[in-house]
Amino acid sequence: MSKIAHDQYREGVAGRADVADTPELLSYYEELEKFETGALWTVANKIEPWQPKSASVPVLWRYRDLREHVLRSVALVTPEKAGRRVIYLNNPGRRDVSAAVGWLYSGLQVMHPGELASAHAHSASALRFIMEGRGAYTIVDGHKMTLGANDFVLTPNGTWHEHGVSDDGTPCIWQDGLDIPLVNAMEAGFYVVHPELNQAVTHPVDDSTATWAAPALRPHDGKWNKAYSPLFKYEWAPTYESLLRYAKVTDGSPFDGILMNYVNPLNGGPVMPTMGASMQLLRPGEHTQAHRHTGSFLYQVAKGSGFSVINGKRLDWYERDIFCVPSWAFHEHANASATEDACLFCFNDMPVMNALGLYREEALADNGGRQAVLA
Amino acid sequence: MSKIAHDQYREGVAGRADVADTPELLSYYEELEKFETGALWTVANKIEPWQPKSASVPVLWRYRDLREHVLRSVALVTPEKAGRRVIYLNNPGRRDVSAAVGWLYSGLQVMHPGELASAHAHSASALRFIMEGRGAYTIVDGHKMTLGANDFVLTPNGTWHEHGVSDDGTPCIWQDGLDIPLVNAMEAGFYVVHPELNQAVTHPVDDSTATWAAPALRPHDGKWNKAYSPLFKYEWAPTYESLLRYAKVTDGSPFDGILMNYVNPLNGGPVMPTMGASMQLLRPGEHTQAHRHTGSFLYQVAKGSGFSVINGKRLDWYERDIFCVPSWAFHEHANASATEDACLFCFNDMPVMNALGLYREEALADNGGRQAVLA
Amino acid sequence: MSKIAHDQYREGVAGRADVADTPELLSYYEELEKFETGALWTVANKIEPWQPKSASVPVLWRYRDLREHVLRSVALVTPEKAGRRVIYLNNPGRRDVSAAVGWLYSGLQVMHPGELASAHAHSASALRFIMEGRGAYTIVDGHKMTLGANDFVLTPNGTWHEHGVSDDGTPCIWQDGLDIPLVNAMEAGFYVVHPELNQAVTHPVDDSTATWAAPALRPHDGKWNKAYSPLFKYEWAPTYESLLRYAKVTDGSPFDGILMNYVNPLNGGPVMPTMGASMQLLRPGEHTQAHRHTGSFLYQVAKGSGFSVINGKRLDWYERDIFCVPSWAFHEHANASATEDACLFCFNDMPVMNALGLYREEALADNGGRQAVLA
Amino acid sequence: MSKIAHDQYREGVAGRADVADTPELLSYYEELEKFETGALWTVANKIEPWQPKSASVPVLWRYRDLREHVLRSVALVTPEKAGRRVIYLNNPGRRDVSAAVGWLYSGLQVMHPGELASAHAHSASALRFIMEGRGAYTIVDGHKMTLGANDFVLTPNGTWHEHGVSDDGTPCIWQDGLDIPLVNAMEAGFYVVHPELNQAVTHPVDDSTATWAAPALRPHDGKWNKAYSPLFKYEWAPTYESLLRYAKVTDGSPFDGILMNYVNPLNGGPVMPTMGASMQLLRPGEHTQAHRHTGSFLYQVAKGSGFSVINGKRLDWYERDIFCVPSWAFHEHANASATEDACLFCFNDMPVMNALGLYREEALADNGGRQAVLA
Repeated sequence: MSKIAHDQYREGVAGRADVADTPELLSYYEELEKFETGALWTVANKIEPWQPKSASVPVLWRYRDLREHVLRSVALVTPEKAGRRVIYLNNPGRRDVSAAVGWLYSGLQVMHPGELASAHAHSASALRFIMEGRGAYTIVDGHKMTLGANDFVLTPNGTWHEHGVSDDGTPCIWQDGLDIPLVNAMEAGFYVVHPELNQAVTHPVDDSTATWAAPALRPHDGKWNKAYSPLFKYEWAPTYESLLRYAKVTDGSPFDGILMNYVNPLNGGPVMPTMGASMQLLRPGEHTQAHRHTGSFLYQVAKGSGFSVINGKRLDWYERDIFCVPSWAFHEHANASATEDACLFCFNDMPVMNALGLYREEALADNGGRQAVLA
Repeated sequence: MSKIAHDQYREGVAGRADVADTPELLSYYEELEKFETGALWTVANKIEPWQPKSASVPVLWRYRDLREHVLRSVALVTPEKAGRRVIYLNNPGRRDVSAAVGWLYSGLQVMHPGELASAHAHSASALRFIMEGRGAYTIVDGHKMTLGANDFVLTPNGTWHEHGVSDDGTPCIWQDGLDIPLVNAMEAGFYVVHPELNQAVTHPVDDSTATWAAPALRPHDGKWNKAYSPLFKYEWAPTYESLLRYAKVTDGSPFDGILMNYVNPLNGGPVMPTMGASMQLLRPGEHTQAHRHTGSFLYQVAKGSGFSVINGKRLDWYERDIFCVPSWAFHEHANASATEDACLFCFNDMPVMNALGLYREEALADNGGRQAVLA
Repeated sequence: MSKIAHDQYREGVAGRADVADTPELLSYYEELEKFETGALWTVANKIEPWQPKSASVPVLWRYRDLREHVLRSVALVTPEKAGRRVIYLNNPGRRDVSAAVGWLYSGLQVMHPGELASAHAHSASALRFIMEGRGAYTIVDGHKMTLGANDFVLTPNGTWHEHGVSDDGTPCIWQDGLDIPLVNAMEAGFYVVHPELNQAVTHPVDDSTATWAAPALRPHDGKWNKAYSPLFKYEWAPTYESLLRYAKVTDGSPFDGILMNYVNPLNGGPVMPTMGASMQLLRPGEHTQAHRHTGSFLYQVAKGSGFSVINGKRLDWYERDIFCVPSWAFHEHANASATEDACLFCFNDMPVMNALGLYREEALADNGGRQAVLA
Repeated sequence: MSKIAHDQYREGVAGRADVADTPELLSYYEELEKFETGALWTVANKIEPWQPKSASVPVLWRYRDLREHVLRSVALVTPEKAGRRVIYLNNPGRRDVSAAVGWLYSGLQVMHPGELASAHAHSASALRFIMEGRGAYTIVDGHKMTLGANDFVLTPNGTWHEHGVSDDGTPCIWQDGLDIPLVNAMEAGFYVVHPELNQAVTHPVDDSTATWAAPALRPHDGKWNKAYSPLFKYEWAPTYESLLRYAKVTDGSPFDGILMNYVNPLNGGPVMPTMGASMQLLRPGEHTQAHRHTGSFLYQVAKGSGFSVINGKRLDWYERDIFCVPSWAFHEHANASATEDACLFCFNDMPVMNALGLYREEALADNGGRQAVLA
């Protein structure tokens, strides 16, 4: 048979496709192709796998490797020419879609004091997590937010937004997270540059946080009908304090230690319809059990040091390092310090998994819940 | 005609009932009564009024009047005999249902150090607002909460709950708020005494607040499927701080100044299905515009002094005073100080009004939005 | 002691109030009254009963008794003078609020061919269930609905509505159901007569049913943001057919046989925020088990005959009879025919019970789930 | 420069990336790759397009072309070996993921009388639309549904399901629709064969429809807590009748004529979290206006004949033909008959677009809303 084989996915299991090529069938397959069709049994086992096998691979991006390259971009390109001065994280398994993991994009952006990028809006949802520097700010639909290290800020789908660093600031670096690959995959990406290149600040500075970040209090006249959180900035100090406070009254999760999700204060749901985010505290000496679940996760070390084991691969991390956990990969986390806590910021596509009914989770049963680490 | 008149509600307006009694009609009415019926037109104008006229009257309960009587109850009755040592607020228009306003009950309770009331559960929902003393606590379904002045605590419908004051505390007074009259009116009141008279504390002290009061953060593993808030205690310090913070970025409401609702952190909704609560700050010198709306409201002065005008009646209030605003009564509030802010705690039946689709609101159009004060 | 006794509600049970009057206490109580207050323990056991005791009593309104009186009203009053020609059902325990049961009003209305009542709107929600006659119609916010026997139609809170009978019709009688007593109790009743006394029909006749009554199909462009159902008319033929169809695949409820709720097709919820409605089929010879629950229920016999036992009182009913089940009253239903089914229309305040978290239910454990019938 | 060009996506527009390659930059890019990173400005314009450009192309699959090939598969493979005897629709732009359009899979399946496929469950959601034959049935979690032409049936995510044709039936062909490509893209696909290869029928036949397809009536005891509709079968007769009934009271949509969505009767929402479905009627002679929107759509002609113009390409269709509309493609539909109506069944990923906040729509402004048809 000189024709292309169509039976490479056969499985000898009841209920699975197991059809061997024959000359007659190969002719039949050739005929089907003329009508833009095919025989399901030739691909069924391929497109209906027993369980997910992520295209993404576990990667650790060390800040000590990236920082100098990020800073060097300042000399190489202007914000005007580059649009954004960003070094993006390019997962070896996802280079075709420029993703850091799954359908999530991420990059490290740098701006110098006095710089201000142009405003735009897009269908992609975005978030930033501040890594270093003083004076950074973001403007979202006229709301200006001042930002410091470990602050977390949203620029949701469809909002006008722009970033800058004040004249009296220092060079600032932050991590961007976007669902660009997902939105492209969904064939739903739109992009608009602000007609005046920059927008006016139309509300008191940091009004979003002053209005919506109160603990279980809501403005009586607060009106909001968007699908994303009205709270755009989540500050580090109250976040860390909340973790410490919660840690005193809970045993925590066997898989994640002390884990809290950033939420939309109006409904307790995720901050945006496509991306969720969390901050997690590993207590001194804590080493969690391994589990795996659907969804793609990107972590930044906000505090401390330790390691994670992801599908048997050990990644040692330090403050500001970034690493990813692909879908259905076993993972466990450990705090390397016996005296200090460690904190991991994370963003992920859990809202997508939940909205589409695709979340599934499994604890590692073997070996006391700890993975064997690959050499 | 010797029979009872049936035409006392006639109105000479098109679309309204306007039937004069005749001997024939009176005989007819008499006949109808035999079958447990009546003629609608004899009562239509009564039962379908043009607008609400509350049975409740505006009342100011001065703490300086009540405090000594509340304290005196300690010598007069034991918690064992009294069940609860409470002086309740008895609106002159609602004595038949022992309500402070509308269908809301309220009272002032006192306990001495070392005292502990028995635990019970009931269909009524309850809340407490602490007025004075150290060492008060409440236990709700095994969660113990320590309480200080201006703390706000929930004991929702169906929960086991009990109150006490620790041995090293001081005499404590707080305001209770319940929907007992509403639940009775709905013919849905059940009451159970705890089989062991007191319940065990099964969670870390103040775990509810440590778990659920974080600003826009939610425990990843936090499970909750009740109709009421999982957060049972709302502390004064972060509440007051939130008001101050919000005041800096808002013009506030023309009718209420800086007004924030206590909410269920999971959904931004009211704390319980039948009662809502809020804390409100009147800025120095602020005197709000008058408006009226459906729903019954009971206020306690948490801080400062001032006055409110309710349906033309001026009530001058000081810290710890309590006053009510009946349904559809015009009301405006004023802070008497030009330098200090004033804070009003309030609980109300807004969740009922909203759930039943009965909320309606109207600003006072005349006189620049200020009522004429009755002599 | 010449003073009024305050200890008539004492109970010798731990956790309940049990304070005997003394001269000192009576003086104290007198003092409290001066400040519009009272001692909780004097009323606690009264206002916190162990379980509900409805003020309403079970009543059967026989259509053979009422029909002639309803028809006689035509000669006695004009629609112009009476507003509505209605004989209302006056529960002996609820005469103060003109209710048929609990907080629900109901009456029988009659109109002759060519008559048309004036349009109005009110905060009360209303429904109609057609008993006899041809040519009846209702107009709700410009939507005209033609009505036949056993059709069920809504005129929700705030809608302009009016009723009439076409020139070529016959005298029509229907049952009205409203939450007037509830809305008055909530002090939220508003009433407006239509400025032109009658409204225009602005949509195709019966468009509501053609648009929203499709089985599990919804207009793609159907917009709706009201708290009540967009479907205003529920026709008898498909309702009865649905019951028969469902009866073939279910065992039914031990307490209610084949019971289906009329719902808002957009959310599967109740037709209006304050009143729910259902149609129920008792199979030939069916005699249900007794249970009791909170909420007030008013039934009309849409088809067949049988009896119900309500708190031990047997009520024998025939087509068009109406009877009520008060809150927390045990009730069971029986179809008197061994060959024909029987159908009961019902409307109730279940949406209120559910929204306020006050629903509770209990099966009768004794006597095989059947009540002893009182002599 | 011998290195690979990195500046192929430059745009000379303010706010877009416009960086020309230089030797220094090319070295820098090379360096970045070592750390699994890249410079955003080299790909920004590619991954942030101005608007979506679907990878799918408009395709018409003619039933007269496919039918014989589908039938021929019966002789070529057994259900046991093939798992399913299905010819799938393979969009030329989506061959890598075996999709008919976007992330949606579809195929035509044939079964002979007496055949029964094995039961399985998977993370993918599935639906079937019956094209021809008598005796087809589907079993979902123990609920057996009998199926005729134009009936629509669900086999949601995670349910055990299997298809068969009764012994006294005729050869049956239906269209399958699944979100397999989407679930694979989300890396969330699981597949399980039923441990006993076939499941028992545990409920009365067609109980799902008898229970949940009533018009605006819901079983009082109906319990359901799944994310998908409890109604699994939507029958053709009442669907067509509903369209005819609705057509009498609406002008219809300028873009779609008379369009109704199949919904979850409990919440009016889509039938499954990832796929929606609709039936649409084009009135005699109707030719709609063109519009475009995000989301991928696959149509089957359930009745009549006509044509659609999709991004300028005219596709003439007859009963049982299938065609697709890719995301953001302009499309308009025309009924070729001046006397008969035409009906289009459609399934799509609108629930995904809506859940993720990615739906956007635009009418064609030019040429009276009609596209120029390409030669």
